[in-house]
Amino acid sequence: MARRIITISREYGSGGRFIGQMVANLLGYKFYDKELMRIVAQESGMSLEYVEENSEQSTTSLLYNLYMASMSGHTAFTRENLPPSYQVYMVQSQVIKKLASEGPCVIIGRSSNFILRERDDCLNVFIHADMRHKIERAVQYYGIPEDDAERLLRRKDKARANHCKHYTEHVWGMAHNYHISLDSGLLGVDVCRDIIATIARDT
Amino acid sequence: MARRIITISREYGSGGRFIGQMVANLLGYKFYDKELMRIVAQESGMSLEYVEENSEQSTTSLLYNLYMASMSGHTAFTRENLPPSYQVYMVQSQVIKKLASEGPCVIIGRSSNFILRERDDCLNVFIHADMRHKIERAVQYYGIPEDDAERLLRRKDKARANHCKHYTEHVWGMAHNYHISLDSGLLGVDVCRDIIATIARDT
Repeated sequence: MARRIITISREYGSGGRFIGQMVANLLGYKFYDKELMRIVAQESGMSLEYVEENSEQSTTSLLYNLYMASMSGHTAFTRENLPPSYQVYMVQSQVIKKLASEGPCVIIGRSSNFILRERDDCLNVFIHADMRHKIERAVQYYGIPEDDAERLLRRKDKARANHCKHYTEHVWGMAHNYHISLDSGLLGVDVCRDIIATIARDT
Repeated sequence: MARRIITISREYGSGGRFIGQMVANLLGYKFYDKELMRIVAQESGMSLEYVEENSEQSTTSLLYNLYMASMSGHTAFTRENLPPSYQVYMVQSQVIKKLASEGPCVIIGRSSNFILRERDDCLNVFIHADMRHKIERAVQYYGIPEDDAERLLRRKDKARANHCKHYTEHVWGMAHNYHISLDSGLLGVDVCRDIIATIARDT
């Protein structure tokens, strides 16, 4: 059975997004990253900026969220009385499930491996790399100043790990939570693309 | 550059050892698992049973080890005044480095990815699988009673994780600590063998 849905979680600067785009092109799958955020913004009525900021990074603490939830005075939660960051997660989950049901696609991040865990046609991938390769990529492609790159990369990944723990109770980056994890620094992005595409086609 | 040393860490029951053996056969590499333990027993003068029990599972707590270390009254540690489980780790580290320096090989577990971290010719692999596949394999090949298998598998992996944390300060099973992590339950052992052998040859 071919894996119709490919989710790609990735360390910041590892090239995971680029690899996902190449896999989608090679297999003729749809590709969801920024486009997913646009749909979530449209469905939720929130600004694209707010959705992007909260889609996979925890900007508020668990304690703050619990406080906000208790202050709402509700015992049953609906979308309307949840804190905004939870609303983003809820709409995002619905959109991801809908897109996955519509046809073959590659989805970047946003805990999509967890959100689609009930499906049996997903290939869940994690892309990582050593710090040197990630800094090179972040400086070259994202225009990040080299002298501040390592601190920024660590902060980005920490925010993703917090978001993952907060919403899924899983540890971000634990190999067991993905079908395949690849070091793009050692392998290069083309080899990563070929491994993922071959497995998606043949498994 | 071909990867001359392949280290394979693995969840209990994932078939990681078997995959490692097949990779070694395919590439004509030496294979170290039980044989490594025999060499460590010989070098340390400890019994094979003790070495096997302590080679990748923490049987004593960190607190106990700290207590033992403080009771020894030494400020500088030599092999002789370390607790026995530390002595196993120390000799094991020396043996792994020596074997790696002698020629291409596949080494199963024993924190070999960490011990050989200064080398630039290692391919570090982690093999995992879902619980159903691991139980099937453990019952079929290791003769473990099915009704107690899940508890036993979790206990084995917890001991490996504790040992890893204790000696290396790394989190066992974090994708970032390996070059490639594979779900043998989804992929099957033959596909895992082929991916590892191809990467070792071509990278």
